Amino acid sequence: MSHDKTSAAPSSRTRIRRRSERAHYDADTVAAIAASALVCHVAFADDAGVHCIPTSCWCHDGHLYIHGAHGSRMLQALAAGEASVALTHVDGLVLARSAFHHSMNYRSVVAYGRFEPVTDADEKLAAFAAYIEMLAPGRWAQVRQPGRKELAATAVLRLALTEAAAKVRDWGVKDDAEDMALPVWAGVVPLRLAAGTPHPDAGCEGLPAPVHWGVPTD
Amino acid sequence: MSHDKTSAAPSSRTRIRRRSERAHYDADTVAAIAASALVCHVAFADDAGVHCIPTSCWCHDGHLYIHGAHGSRMLQALAAGEASVALTHVDGLVLARSAFHHSMNYRSVVAYGRFEPVTDADEKLAAFAAYIEMLAPGRWAQVRQPGRKELAATAVLRLALTEAAAKVRDWGVKDDAEDMALPVWAGVVPLRLAAGTPHPDAGCEGLPAPVHWGVPTD
Repeated sequence: MSHDKTSAAPSSRTRIRRRSERAHYDADTVAAIAASALVCHVAFADDAGVHCIPTSCWCHDGHLYIHGAHGSRMLQALAAGEASVALTHVDGLVLARSAFHHSMNYRSVVAYGRFEPVTDADEKLAAFAAYIEMLAPGRWAQVRQPGRKELAATAVLRLALTEAAAKVRDWGVKDDAEDMALPVWAGVVPLRLAAGTPHPDAGCEGLPAPVHWGVPTD
Repeated sequence: MSHDKTSAAPSSRTRIRRRSERAHYDADTVAAIAASALVCHVAFADDAGVHCIPTSCWCHDGHLYIHGAHGSRMLQALAAGEASVALTHVDGLVLARSAFHHSMNYRSVVAYGRFEPVTDADEKLAAFAAYIEMLAPGRWAQVRQPGRKELAATAVLRLALTEAAAKVRDWGVKDDAEDMALPVWAGVVPLRLAAGTPHPDAGCEGLPAPVHWGVPTD
């Protein structure tokens, strides 16, 4: 991944101070990392303290979307104040000759801001379509689309990915010079989220299985 | 995963109110899910608001461990107050006949509490050993172990996984009865973090590659 040195952090709290050579602040890098995330973690505060809650997510129109039950603790808190959201892909184990230099390759995004509720019915429908299309391209046209009651039952929120920073490590081992001759394997073990053989629901054995979620190949 | 109905949430803020049939509060379930996480997300608050920061993690002796640079924003905040930590494994896409019933299979843990610094040199060394052994079993004995300066350069913190809750969805599609005859494939596409072919560092081509990180097989 190329590093755009001309791009600056959008705010003080997004500026990456530790290992700043891994920082990326350009919108394209942030969007690309977020677009392939199935889950994000949302930090928010309420009377009980700070919470970190995992939830499924998807991207659409420059925003990160989440959904949930009206009245849930998280959605109530997100309506009342700011949040921070993070998503992370682990891309590999970096195994060095020295314990100290072990690391991981990863791509992460941390974003800040206030979620806004998506209340317009057409916008909500478009958001759900984007979610289903992320899970399996072409699927929105195949499934039964949500009815009015179903749309009303689910709250949809979105966060503009404007105050956001990406952090990426995508290189090999960096051992100390004096350790290079040690007789231990060093290198990168790539990791990826891989789809296995689909398990059809009863009655679906004869139907064509959908395209798998698009994961990177080796 | 069996559901121990006799186990209760350890606190009000860990009690899972939404989809409580997915809740697990027993220590074994929490520990098993945490033990296979490579990354957690840490929520904490400081003067700039709430933050959600991804960081690598590992389990040892009933605690979740993280490490970082002394003086980093996160470590300073964790020394000063409580945090919430979450980790999530996405295990599958649940593709239903109706858009509304699409879901994911997952295993997650949310924990609360105050991280404690690991300052004793022997404990710190044992913690690093556990980290390296998680990345590749047997590796601690092969690599150059950390020197005094290296140990001093890195802060290690741990959180007891006592105020914690797990949430697990590990079943198939639940469509409405009236949708069961729709001619669309429904089922589960399993997902797992899979290791690819190791890329050796220069000079390591002839050495045996390590055992891959232990990922579940189909």
